[in-house]
Amino acid sequence: MRKLRTHELARKSVEQFKSSKKSPIVVVLDNIRSMNNVGSIFRTSDAFMVEKLYLCGFTGTPPHREITKTAIGAENSVEWEYVESTEEVVERLKKEGYHLVALEQTDASDNLNDCTLDFKPVAFILGNEIDGVSQTVIDKCDRCVEIPQLGTKHSFNVAVSYGMLLWDYAKTNKLF
Amino acid sequence: MRKLRTHELARKSVEQFKSSKKSPIVVVLDNIRSMNNVGSIFRTSDAFMVEKLYLCGFTGTPPHREITKTAIGAENSVEWEYVESTEEVVERLKKEGYHLVALEQTDASDNLNDCTLDFKPVAFILGNEIDGVSQTVIDKCDRCVEIPQLGTKHSFNVAVSYGMLLWDYAKTNKLF
Repeated sequence: MRKLRTHELARKSVEQFKSSKKSPIVVVLDNIRSMNNVGSIFRTSDAFMVEKLYLCGFTGTPPHREITKTAIGAENSVEWEYVESTEEVVERLKKEGYHLVALEQTDASDNLNDCTLDFKPVAFILGNEIDGVSQTVIDKCDRCVEIPQLGTKHSFNVAVSYGMLLWDYAKTNKLF
Repeated sequence: MRKLRTHELARKSVEQFKSSKKSPIVVVLDNIRSMNNVGSIFRTSDAFMVEKLYLCGFTGTPPHREITKTAIGAENSVEWEYVESTEEVVERLKKEGYHLVALEQTDASDNLNDCTLDFKPVAFILGNEIDGVSQTVIDKCDRCVEIPQLGTKHSFNVAVSYGMLLWDYAKTNKLF
C-alpha cells in the first residue's frame, strides 16, 4: 500500500468549491470560545461541503491567525456569516425550512446511536465548550441529539463531536 | 428539552473506568506533533473505553500541561505506554492478534463509507499531522482506511478523523 501524494488526491480548488452543489447542511456556532475549535469546524465543514457556517455571540471570526492555524485555509472555501444573536439565526433558519438539531445532552435528547438523522435541509447547532448550547436556543430547536459516552468525561471536544455527527449524517444520507 | 447538569450524566469515576471491561481497541500514535491532538485523542478514547494508547516516536506523553488542556483528565483514565519505535509496537500487536488498520490515504485504502470495520480486536494507527503514518509502518499493517472528503483540503485534523473512525467502529460493532 503506497501513500498518496498531495497532487494525487485531486481535491477541489476554492473556486470549484464555491461553484459546486453543497450538502443540505448549515451549522450554527453558539458562543464557541476556542479559535482552534472554530478553525477545526471550518476544516471539517469543507470536507463535507457544508452550505454555510453561522458564527454567533462571542464566537471568533476570520481573519484570525488562530482560526487559520486549524482551518488551514478552509475559512476561504466555506461560506460564513457573523450574527450576534444565535436565537435570531435559528428563527431565520426555521422560517427557511431547516430542521433544527442541537448537539446537546438534555432530558429529551435522541441518542445518535439509535436515531436516523435524515432531515434535509438540516441546521446543526453547536454550543460553548463549557456551557453547551444555550437553553434559550434549545427552546427553539426541533430536537437535541447526543453522542453516547462510556467513560469518565462529561462531553466530547466540540470539534470532534461535530466530526462524528457529520460523518453519521453523511453516511445516513449517502452524501458520498 | 432541559439541559442536563453534570451530576445527571452519571459518568464513571477513574477507578470504575480502570476496572471496567474495555472495548477491543488499541490505538497507536505515530509521531503526533501537537499536544492538543494527543490530549484530544485521550479524551475521545475515554468515551469509547479504549483499551490502551501507544505513544510513539516524538509523540508527547503525560504529564504535560498542553495534553491536560485538551484531555481534561482523560490521561488519567486511559492506559498508555510510550514506545519509541512505532514499528516495534505494530509488530508486537500483530503477534498478539490485533488487526492493524492505519488511517491513511494510499493507493489501496478502503473507503470508510463502503467498508465494514468489524475486526476484533483492532489496532488503529494514526499518523503525523503533515506526513501521516510512516510508510514503514503502513508496510506492516493489514489494511488502510480513508475517510472520503469532498472539499478543498487534503486531510482532516487527526483528532477529528479519529473521532469519526471510532464512531463508525462503535456503531458497526454495537459498543453502546
